[in-house]
Amino acid sequence: MFQLYWADDDCLPAGDRGFSYGDGLFETIRVCEGRAPLLGYHLDRLLTDSGRLGIFLSRPELEKACSDAVDRYGVVYGGAPWVLKFVVTRGTGGRGYRPLAEMRPNLFVFHFPAPPGPPETGVRADFSRIPLTVNPLFSGMKTLNRLEQVMAAREMHGSVWELLMTNADGHVVEGTRTNLFLLGPEGWVTPPGASLAVSGVMRRQVIERLHLTGERLVERSVGVGELLSPHCRGVWLSNSVIGVVPVNNLAGHDLPVDNRLATICDPEKRPD
Amino acid sequence: MFQLYWADDDCLPAGDRGFSYGDGLFETIRVCEGRAPLLGYHLDRLLTDSGRLGIFLSRPELEKACSDAVDRYGVVYGGAPWVLKFVVTRGTGGRGYRPLAEMRPNLFVFHFPAPPGPPETGVRADFSRIPLTVNPLFSGMKTLNRLEQVMAAREMHGSVWELLMTNADGHVVEGTRTNLFLLGPEGWVTPPGASLAVSGVMRRQVIERLHLTGERLVERSVGVGELLSPHCRGVWLSNSVIGVVPVNNLAGHDLPVDNRLATICDPEKRPD
Repeated sequence: MFQLYWADDDCLPAGDRGFSYGDGLFETIRVCEGRAPLLGYHLDRLLTDSGRLGIFLSRPELEKACSDAVDRYGVVYGGAPWVLKFVVTRGTGGRGYRPLAEMRPNLFVFHFPAPPGPPETGVRADFSRIPLTVNPLFSGMKTLNRLEQVMAAREMHGSVWELLMTNADGHVVEGTRTNLFLLGPEGWVTPPGASLAVSGVMRRQVIERLHLTGERLVERSVGVGELLSPHCRGVWLSNSVIGVVPVNNLAGHDLPVDNRLATICDPEKRPD
Repeated sequence: MFQLYWADDDCLPAGDRGFSYGDGLFETIRVCEGRAPLLGYHLDRLLTDSGRLGIFLSRPELEKACSDAVDRYGVVYGGAPWVLKFVVTRGTGGRGYRPLAEMRPNLFVFHFPAPPGPPETGVRADFSRIPLTVNPLFSGMKTLNRLEQVMAAREMHGSVWELLMTNADGHVVEGTRTNLFLLGPEGWVTPPGASLAVSGVMRRQVIERLHLTGERLVERSVGVGELLSPHCRGVWLSNSVIGVVPVNNLAGHDLPVDNRLATICDPEKRPD
């Protein structure tokens, strides 16, 4: 059973291990008019990944925290979309890096307005110079250790909406806050889950929808050159707060744009 | 100019980026009877590395915070050694990973008793199964992104005092909370600075003292087999809170022990 803190009390416990070491993880859940269509996927990931860290939560408790938060904050936002953020940490205390044998996790509940949606005509993206490193132990996990993403995001400039990060092999893995899909000659392509720093809930939704609609999808490494090649029929970025958005220009190169992926994957719409 | 928080007020700002993303770094400074012999090296590292992150502090301000902390807490400890911990973060707020253009850093000041010193007869160590990953951007830097060290430290068992971590190349790089020196056939050896997750202040002290005393030191990668080989004349672990301690048993293998390195490097003693 976790200890719950409302972030708007603005008073975090000084010994919290999320603060000391990033010893925890988080979810950012889009809510609108009291509904969070991807909540189930967010809780699936939170439960699985906290378990991988040795932090044990219960689903009913998390669901209750979510509905309490929606009751508490929904009124503030009215009909406007907002974001519910859950931060789970291993708890307070321990001897340095080594936790106590028994620890009570902390759950911190934040809220903020949803960022403005990107235009349906697409966004500009570029490549980050900040290398992406992924410890296999944490692959795909939205841990609190996000300093690489901070250093990459610091370099966002002008009208660039996202920076794509490459790993030591030179493969393009993901954006600072998005996952990546491209439409190549063979069909849809996305970098493999094991290579990711964060495996998005929207990424899961996109993969499942593509499967449901019988579209071909391959999970494999993606090279920089592929994204800029004339054979590339489009690049999309995904996260659960903004949905899916096409890239219309990558590192100065115009890319073909359509809204095919957004249409397939809109959680509000059902494919025929 | 930073915003200072005393951790014993137990009330951290909820929007602090160190909490959200590990967007910051820390120092753990041994203090005894009002003196911190390695303070200068700690501040050197803090100033250099915060600068690498784009967080700008002033040395006089940090020195004042240190002396204020020693005044505030020294009385509590009397003649017993204690640890002053400074946590510096980029500040409070920003839009997701991307910081605001201008941010005021936060400095959080913690204190705790020094852990018991390990026996001079040496300690038992073993190898961690948790891989060590180092983003070159952060090599050597004591950032708040320490989840790997937490996961490694969780596996500490029995009388094992430290677990040594290896990187993807299979080289032994450092302990969860220490740096590593060995005495091989060619002289002293330590893993290179660029390969490290944390480049310790005590490591710096050891290297400088070895140089001062004319001892041969090579910075190069170290293989697991070297540490267990009959040609290995000793292994030492260092950090600025415990000093230098020999390893008397590594993964079940007894190692030769002497206190040569501790004698060379005791900041309280001067070499002849």
